Amino acid sequence: MGQGEDRLEKQIAFIREMDKEKLIARQTYLANGERKENDAEHAWHLALMTILLSEYANEKIDVLKTVTMVLFHDVVEIDAGDTYAYDEEGKKTQADREQKAAARLYGLLPKDQGEKLKAIWEEFEARETPESRFAHAMDNLQPVILNVASGGKSWIEHTVCLSQIMGRQKDTKKGSEVLWDYEWEKLIHPFVENGMIIDDREKE
Amino acid sequence: MGQGEDRLEKQIAFIREMDKEKLIARQTYLANGERKENDAEHAWHLALMTILLSEYANEKIDVLKTVTMVLFHDVVEIDAGDTYAYDEEGKKTQADREQKAAARLYGLLPKDQGEKLKAIWEEFEARETPESRFAHAMDNLQPVILNVASGGKSWIEHTVCLSQIMGRQKDTKKGSEVLWDYEWEKLIHPFVENGMIIDDREKE
Repeated sequence: MGQGEDRLEKQIAFIREMDKEKLIARQTYLANGERKENDAEHAWHLALMTILLSEYANEKIDVLKTVTMVLFHDVVEIDAGDTYAYDEEGKKTQADREQKAAARLYGLLPKDQGEKLKAIWEEFEARETPESRFAHAMDNLQPVILNVASGGKSWIEHTVCLSQIMGRQKDTKKGSEVLWDYEWEKLIHPFVENGMIIDDREKE
Repeated sequence: MGQGEDRLEKQIAFIREMDKEKLIARQTYLANGERKENDAEHAWHLALMTILLSEYANEKIDVLKTVTMVLFHDVVEIDAGDTYAYDEEGKKTQADREQKAAARLYGLLPKDQGEKLKAIWEEFEARETPESRFAHAMDNLQPVILNVASGGKSWIEHTVCLSQIMGRQKDTKKGSEVLWDYEWEKLIHPFVENGMIIDDREKE
């Protein structure tokens, strides 16, 4: 088998392996509340959003790089599983599980391509570039859009408090002030007002 | 409500509407044969493949444009439904149903953005640019990878013949000779050899 063919074999094997993302359930329900969404659907939604909303990024972003980042950002969950945003126990072992997963999964690809994609995933995790900040804004905003559409189904199921949401959403603002303002005013705040998100902020 | 806020409202409404793609079942089974995949999962897989395989395009392609094309290529199915590649009856009304769907769905977006994305979808349908030819190569190759992985489940279910597959796959070659050669040699031909795809080509 020639070198070129070996390269393509590896890429096709990786593409086949990626199919498993369609089997990883997240905690967020679809907009109609029918069932929970999976990692592949979630990543598709983020990619779409990145293309539609990039004009609101705080800093200029490379859209193709950001789209690549969100398309692949959950690949590690094929081995490491999904860790719910508010699962404090699971989060303790998450980094270690995901590093091992990244080594195996990106290792399926030809070396140059695997290293490049692994580096983009590490950049996403480090949250230190305009692209990774915007990608996290998408990753935070999307489940909120779905939660609101489904009547807060996942928040209610997990008895999520406002402090937990705000802890996570501090990153949304770093990617886009405009989107954070919208998200707070139009999506989160009305659910605090109607009592479906428990307001546990300390009062003066 | 200011003009900027109205723009963002429209974009978020479109993003929410897009969630329905996750409910549109295709005829292709997941690699493990467990269930059929849906439009959102399929589009995610094509976007991933475009990034991984663009080096094999016959002509130089704009990767971001091609990724955008595949991410949105099935949006019209939210209104028009999925038409199976080998459903000759359904294909007669497909173009008309999809034109109406495109007008409504892209019409949800701010005018400039809706027109731009509708034009990219029309470019995909016309198959006359390097990007659209490569996007169709992805759209053809992906279900073949999954069908082979699931032991030909969808082909058997629909008693698909080789002439039907070849009719569709002529477009794969136009996007990428390399990928078509691989697809024929490693994926389709072995299934003809073992009799799981019915060889209905006329013999000399």
